[in-house]
Amino acid sequence: MNHPAVNRLSLNQITTEQWKLQEALEGCAKREVEWISIWRHKLHEYGVSETKKHLQETGIRVSSLCRGGMFPAATKQERKRRIDDNLRAIDEAAKLGTNVLVLVCGPSSDDNLPEARRHVQEGIEAIIPYAKECNIKLGIEPLHPMYAADRSVINTLGQANRLAETVGKEQVGVVVDAFHVWWDPELDSEIERAKGNILGFHVSDWKVPITDMFKGRSMMGDGVIELRKVRKQVEAAGYQGPIEVEIMNQALWDRPGDDVIREMIERYKSHV
Amino acid sequence: MNHPAVNRLSLNQITTEQWKLQEALEGCAKREVEWISIWRHKLHEYGVSETKKHLQETGIRVSSLCRGGMFPAATKQERKRRIDDNLRAIDEAAKLGTNVLVLVCGPSSDDNLPEARRHVQEGIEAIIPYAKECNIKLGIEPLHPMYAADRSVINTLGQANRLAETVGKEQVGVVVDAFHVWWDPELDSEIERAKGNILGFHVSDWKVPITDMFKGRSMMGDGVIELRKVRKQVEAAGYQGPIEVEIMNQALWDRPGDDVIREMIERYKSHV
Repeated sequence: MNHPAVNRLSLNQITTEQWKLQEALEGCAKREVEWISIWRHKLHEYGVSETKKHLQETGIRVSSLCRGGMFPAATKQERKRRIDDNLRAIDEAAKLGTNVLVLVCGPSSDDNLPEARRHVQEGIEAIIPYAKECNIKLGIEPLHPMYAADRSVINTLGQANRLAETVGKEQVGVVVDAFHVWWDPELDSEIERAKGNILGFHVSDWKVPITDMFKGRSMMGDGVIELRKVRKQVEAAGYQGPIEVEIMNQALWDRPGDDVIREMIERYKSHV
Repeated sequence: MNHPAVNRLSLNQITTEQWKLQEALEGCAKREVEWISIWRHKLHEYGVSETKKHLQETGIRVSSLCRGGMFPAATKQERKRRIDDNLRAIDEAAKLGTNVLVLVCGPSSDDNLPEARRHVQEGIEAIIPYAKECNIKLGIEPLHPMYAADRSVINTLGQANRLAETVGKEQVGVVVDAFHVWWDPELDSEIERAKGNILGFHVSDWKVPITDMFKGRSMMGDGVIELRKVRKQVEAAGYQGPIEVEIMNQALWDRPGDDVIREMIERYKSHV
């Protein structure tokens, strides 16, 4: 068997954005997908306690909560507001029984990258104590450099590793999303450097041409990323946890969710 | 005066793709733009000797020839063909009186990035002797990581620097295009590392959202890149040569070329 155990497969909820959270949970249960990564906007629609109850009924576990972060802002007051929102996210993660909050660190508010990167570090440092208290790990997910202007100023695994090392690896690690990092000439060495500190592994694919910057990801196998190779590297660096399928793609969202889940399982087996 | 000397401004010909080469030369002459970067498809349309004559008549100098590179290929025979084409490009560059051939190194033919990167190194090594004979410097231009699948497997300035150091800096340097490198957390240190070995500096802007991967660049001042800061860093690293404005943008191509040149000069003064 070349593919990873099917019981490591996790539906990152954005892959079935057309579904409400309760539908996604039922959809996973139907196809025996044992993990889900929950997005906060969907969680807030359904409610934390209803979600928790539904998770218990289906036996599905939460691989991570998406997402904390978004730390840089123009004013101290606004940065404080962002930190408070991260504390709420930590609370929600703990209630859902996951131990990982994914951090999408956020863009600069004024084109000043070094300052925005300082804000990210300060934001993470501010939430570490509460994350520790709640037993939640903070997973810094570097985003592809094409998102540096509008989504995150943390853009390489090297940068995420350095940041985790700076703020302390006890509570902070990295999330490796193949779509974001596959191109990096330093990928091999940075995955090694992250050894023991990888908190998540996300898969999708990069299909040429990318026609939409945000919704441009494809199903595993439809693009150029050597997913199996990256998965093995991540495993060699000690990560044996859930593998999230995270695909923003309008064509997938236009299909019946169950059809997407079915294909996701197939492609996980054939390409991850 | 904050802006760089106007006599350093160079029209990278792709910015006025709507123009033939003879029109671009006339257009530069009319607005007293002293430099041009010539693209080979336009050069071949007009002819090398006609171009040379026209350059002499107008007094315009060639900042670089775009482009060599495209080294990776599936077969040894095809790689040889690419190398031969690069030798012709070196010839053309020498005939035009520039001393820089820009290398856009090319994508992988089969999703194997490490192999494609080896092909790039081998390709450059193969053309160095002839470049030396012709007194042409080879400028490795790292392309933004979003082009890693379809345009170039050289995606950071660090990678370009290392490659230049490996093959030998006597004949090989780097080209810093702000659009490709602005996001890089290692930018400051990699520009410093390139000291004395920068062969070109290109400007345009990154406007959010990018709606077209290839033709998504904007006029300086319309986006988020701190162009003046990068320009000063490049100068501190010893580069005092022509500054090319290189903008692939359909909206610019739909306008009269002279209007684009006029705006380019204004924006160069106000934002570079």
